[in-house]
Formats: sequence, C-alpha cells, structure tokens
Amino acid sequence: MNDGPLDSELQERNADAFVHVGDCFDDDLRYLTGFSGPDRDYAYVYDGENGGATLCTPRLFEEQAREEFSGRVVSVAEQSSRTAGERAAELVSGTVLVPQGIPHDAALWLERAGCGIESTDVVERMRVRKTEEEIERISGVQDAAQAGMALAETVLASAEVGDGTLNWDGESLTTERLRREVNAAMAREGAAPAGNTVIGARESCADLHFTGDVPIGPGETVLIDLSPRGPAGYYGDLSRTFVVDSEGGWERRAYVAVERAQDAAFEVLSAGAGTVASAVHGETAAEISAYGFRPDGSPGFTHGAGHGVGMSLHEAPSLRADRELEAGMVLTVEPGVYDPEKGGVRIEDLVVVREEGFENLTDYPRSLVPQVRSSDQ
Amino acid sequence: MNDGPLDSELQERNADAFVHVGDCFDDDLRYLTGFSGPDRDYAYVYDGENGGATLCTPRLFEEQAREEFSGRVVSVAEQSSRTAGERAAELVSGTVLVPQGIPHDAALWLERAGCGIESTDVVERMRVRKTEEEIERISGVQDAAQAGMALAETVLASAEVGDGTLNWDGESLTTERLRREVNAAMAREGAAPAGNTVIGARESCADLHFTGDVPIGPGETVLIDLSPRGPAGYYGDLSRTFVVDSEGGWERRAYVAVERAQDAAFEVLSAGAGTVASAVHGETAAEISAYGFRPDGSPGFTHGAGHGVGMSLHEAPSLRADRELEAGMVLTVEPGVYDPEKGGVRIEDLVVVREEGFENLTDYPRSLVPQVRSSDQ
Repeated sequence: MNDGPLDSELQERNADAFVHVGDCFDDDLRYLTGFSGPDRDYAYVYDGENGGATLCTPRLFEEQAREEFSGRVVSVAEQSSRTAGERAAELVSGTVLVPQGIPHDAALWLERAGCGIESTDVVERMRVRKTEEEIERISGVQDAAQAGMALAETVLASAEVGDGTLNWDGESLTTERLRREVNAAMAREGAAPAGNTVIGARESCADLHFTGDVPIGPGETVLIDLSPRGPAGYYGDLSRTFVVDSEGGWERRAYVAVERAQDAAFEVLSAGAGTVASAVHGETAAEISAYGFRPDGSPGFTHGAGHGVGMSLHEAPSLRADRELEAGMVLTVEPGVYDPEKGGVRIEDLVVVREEGFENLTDYPRSLVPQVRSSDQ
Repeated sequence: MNDGPLDSELQERNADAFVHVGDCFDDDLRYLTGFSGPDRDYAYVYDGENGGATLCTPRLFEEQAREEFSGRVVSVAEQSSRTAGERAAELVSGTVLVPQGIPHDAALWLERAGCGIESTDVVERMRVRKTEEEIERISGVQDAAQAGMALAETVLASAEVGDGTLNWDGESLTTERLRREVNAAMAREGAAPAGNTVIGARESCADLHFTGDVPIGPGETVLIDLSPRGPAGYYGDLSRTFVVDSEGGWERRAYVAVERAQDAAFEVLSAGAGTVASAVHGETAAEISAYGFRPDGSPGFTHGAGHGVGMSLHEAPSLRADRELEAGMVLTVEPGVYDPEKGGVRIEDLVVVREEGFENLTDYPRSLVPQVRSSDQ
C-alpha cells in the first residue's frame, strides 16, 4: 500500500492522525495493514511523519502480525487489558480522521482522550484504483473461479437427461450438489468459496443470490455465480448460465441479449475517453431493451451492470455511479435478464479498466450449451 | 432466537428499543436476524411490544430477507437513498440500547434523531448458552471438520517417506498442498473452510495460526486445526496432531501430556457443580506441568485451554474467565505444548456443557500415528 493518499488527506484536513479499529472481517483494515488478523478487534494508527503506521494487536497474534503487517510498528498487549480503541487513543492527539463506520466505542475512546474526530472516506478512495500487485492477486483468484466454473460446466455437460431431471454420478443433480463440487474445486485451487456460491435453476435464477437446494432439470437455465476469496483477501467474480437440452425459445433469446449487452459494455470501457460509469450500464440496458426485454425491472434486467471488486466483493464504483472511469478500476460486467416464471440468464466477466480500453481478467468461454472443460479450459 | 432476553433488557434498562447496524460479517446481526445478508449495511430494530423486530435491508436483497429473517417486518429501500443507520433512526425514539461496537455513523444518526443511546452487552450474553437447534447446527459443521481431518490423516498415513521429505500422489507434501485437499473435503460436505485452516509442520506448529506453505517431513509434528463455517453461520473447531515415522522423544512426551490434559479438563466439565471456567484451564495446565512442560509460556503451553464457539469462531466464554460454567455453553477443549525448535502438539475437541457433565460433539480418534480413515472414520 502507498501511504501517499493518507499523507495528503492528513495535510489537507489539517489533521494529526488517521485511526481505524475492527477485526479480520473489516476489509478496510485488511487493505491498510495486509494483516489477515484475528476475529478480535485490532487497530491501525497512522500519523505520517511522526512515526508512520502502527498496528495494535492482541499478543496472541504477534508473530502473524510481524510477518504480515506492511507498516513500521507492531504494538502488542494482552487482549484482556485494554480494547483496541483504547490502545489507539493512547497513541494519538489532536484531530483524528476515522472512517465513518469505525466502532462507536473506539470513537468514544478517542474523544475521551481529548481528540477531535472527523470522518474521512480516504480509504474508500484509495481502494478504487488497484495497483498492478492487487490486479495480479485478483487475477489469481479469478483463475480459481474459472476452475470452479469448468468443473460445473463439465458436470452439466456429462449429466444424463432423465424424465424431467438430470442425473450425475448415479444421483439426481441439484443446485446444492453442484455447489459442493464447485466449492471443492475452488478450494483445491487455494481459494475460499466463502459461502457465496450462487447456483440457481429455472425460477431460482431470478433470486440474484440464491444459495438453496433445488433439483436441476433439462431445459432449465442454470445460473452459476462464483465469488471466491484468495489468500491475500482479494475476490474474484465470474458468472455463466447454461441449459442442458435447451429447446431454444425464451432462454436462447435472453442469452443472445445478455451476450450482446456485455459486448456493448466492453466497447465503451476505457479510462481515457472520459466515459462515465453509468454510461456502461446505459449501454447494456439499451442492448437488452433492443432484444425486447425490459431494461429496468422484472421481468427483465433487474440490477446494475457491474460493481468494483477488490478486498470487498462489492465496492466502489458501481456501474450506475455518476463518475468517470479511471485506469486501475477492477469491475464486473454482468448484464442479466430474469423472468420469475421462466428462469434467468447472467454472464459476468471481471475486467480492469486501462487508459485505453480494458483488460479482461476472465478467460472463460461463453456458451449456453455446456461443454466438457479441463480445469484451465 | 428467543426475544425474551431483549424484552427483559429493555424493561430493566427502561429503554424503548434495541438497534444494531452492520453487514453480513457481523456475527451479532446474523445471530439476531438469521439473515445471511449482503456485504452492505443493514439494520435490526427491536422495540418489543411496540412492533417486535424489523430488518432494514437494501431492496436488492428483499427476497432473501423475507425468506431468512426470523422477525416480523422486513423494510426495504434503495441502497443509495439512506444508510441503514439513518433508516433505523426513523423507526425509534427515546432511549435506545446498542452494542458498543455499533458503527459510529449509525450511533450519530440515532443521536441526531433525538435518541439517547446506551450500550448493552445483551447480545453477547444471549449467545453464550446455545439452544438445542444451535447445538445441532454446530454439530453438523463439526462433522464436516471431521471429514476434513479424516482426509488429512489418510493423506499422511499413505504418504511415502523419502529422504527427509514426505511424498504423496507423486509430489512432495507441503502444508499448503495438504490444506487445499482438506479444504476441498470440507467444501464437499457443505462447509466453508473460510481461510482459517491452520496446518503447521515442525517449527511452524508453534505459530498458533500458521497458514503458510512449508514442506512436511518424517518425524515432524503436523498440527491440523480446522474451523469450517456451516451454511447457517455456525463454526466447528477440531485439532489433531500427527507424526509420520515418529522416533518418539519430545513429541511422544508432549502428546501424552496433551492427551492427559484434555482428559483432566473433561473430568471437571459440568454445569451443575458450580465449576468456574478458569478451573478447566487450571486442570489442563497442572497436567501439562506434571509432564515436565511449562504450563504458562514458551516453550510449553502458550494459550488458554479453550473458548466458546458459535456464530463466531471465538466467543465467550474463555476457559480463562472467572465465571461459572453453564449448561448449553459450547466450548473447545484444546490443550497444547509448543517448542519453537521442536514442534507443537495440540488436540482439540468441541463439547457442549450439560447440567451433569458434558457432551462431546466430536467423534474423532486421538492418535499420534496417522491411520487411513473413511470420511466418517
């Protein structure tokens, strides 16, 4: 991480320090520290020229903190003695900048220590443009997602069509059976499925985050949305939709509309041209509309065309945002068409915006009819 | 979830409502709502007789919220319109109880709306004693951990001893290779490895949360600590230590000490007898000391004998706490002995304290020498 933006923010706001407190589930903290942390509170304190970055962690995690923390000082104490907020408050004075969602008790410790606290969104701003190192990590996780997708597609391609059901490996295939196989494949690649493997069949595809268990039948859309997390904390994000034994009709038309919508987005993705994020959504919606689907609700296109991905699965910018695209933004491009009575189709790639055009971090074929794939396709 | 304790707390504190705000990574919120939520803020509002429990969520997650939320009212709004804290503040007045770690901006919204806010630890207290439904869920995740352990033990038992290395499936075995196989096995059982699969070899066993990659050799302690998370959010926790081709010596003595220490803890685990949690730690430490190892530092026993497990991997009570054991507490019992130069041994079971004695949610053999096991042993 480059401390430059923190330094500038302290200077511009005439502030003395930046403080954040949280646990291992706080993505801002993981971004700031590189520390994969414990599930107990720890604190990050930055005071620029006065000493740089300090990590306050329970003593039990000292070894891990010294290995992982990118800053200068690791301060340890017994977990029971003082909270992370209390310890951070001992290290700072004057005006302290904090993220607006800092735990309330940490804010109170800072105030009790005589600090004036002001909120800042500097970390959110820092996270928007990824470094090449971050992009490499995200790309590695996307590879694990692709291995998971290859497994799912291969299972679907080799399933036997029964009387209204699909059978695989001697049993009827369900969304949960397929989810477990996909999660195992991603885990084997070193990524954590992290509970967000969305697999829907027919109606449940219209539930954008379906994680339940329903049978998968022939002729039904099977929507697979994989968002594993890599060892450094970065996410991948990849969606494909397949139909075994498709009879064409609605899903074929929806698939073509979504493919064309994704292509339309790709045509405008570039930082140099001053393109606004919401224009990317606009292009996909227009294409979906041209194929006769509603571009802004159900049945039709019910969500935004994409979002930022990094240390959080969903982060800035949304492709509905009124801000210009910038080089280094990592974005999903994921148009979709849904009909609660017929099914749902979504195709999602993960890309990085470049000064001219974009780079697709996804290298996975688009095909409505499932094929047998090797784990690197 | 039983609302009784929230009602009592509101009454005793003469308060009008309870509010919490957070995202899907907030375990208190998941406990209160049953909602597996989005990675955007949502709010839980409880005002007892005035309406019960309300969940405020972005509209995008309405379907999921209506399916999962255990309370009465789901309130949806566009994510961009108002924050979860702002929406919660519109629903309450008077004195509002909040967890001390509620996001600071949510606390400010409540104050701006004229509420007096006071912190409460009622949710932490509610979570300490598990219901039979929670115990069943935890037990199910522990089964997935056992399947992972059986895989790991089988790999070790079938590894070939080379010149200072172990080989498995044609390649040298490392902690990361073994970790990926174990994670895949747990994923196939429907549990998420969630980035906390600790596997150390020799020296790295003394790093209590080692997730790095080092070769595994014969005669080395291999410490495997599995903490998968199940679909309802509950964790399991299971540790075993193996040595392939052990020559006895330090690790054999450490293993016996740790086994006896665990047995000593089991003998005093019971709610009826007024046993204090810290006495359980005391029993394990005494036994470890009796075998000639330091009971309170390195080299020796460097951590507590156990902790609560539930919607968080580490939650109250610690087995160092000065509080009586209560029926329904789910606890790890995990004595360990470590020497940064020789290795580390830890054995960990997950148990539920009963009125008389305890019930072991773990059904996995203890053996220093790895055996081939079936996935249900």
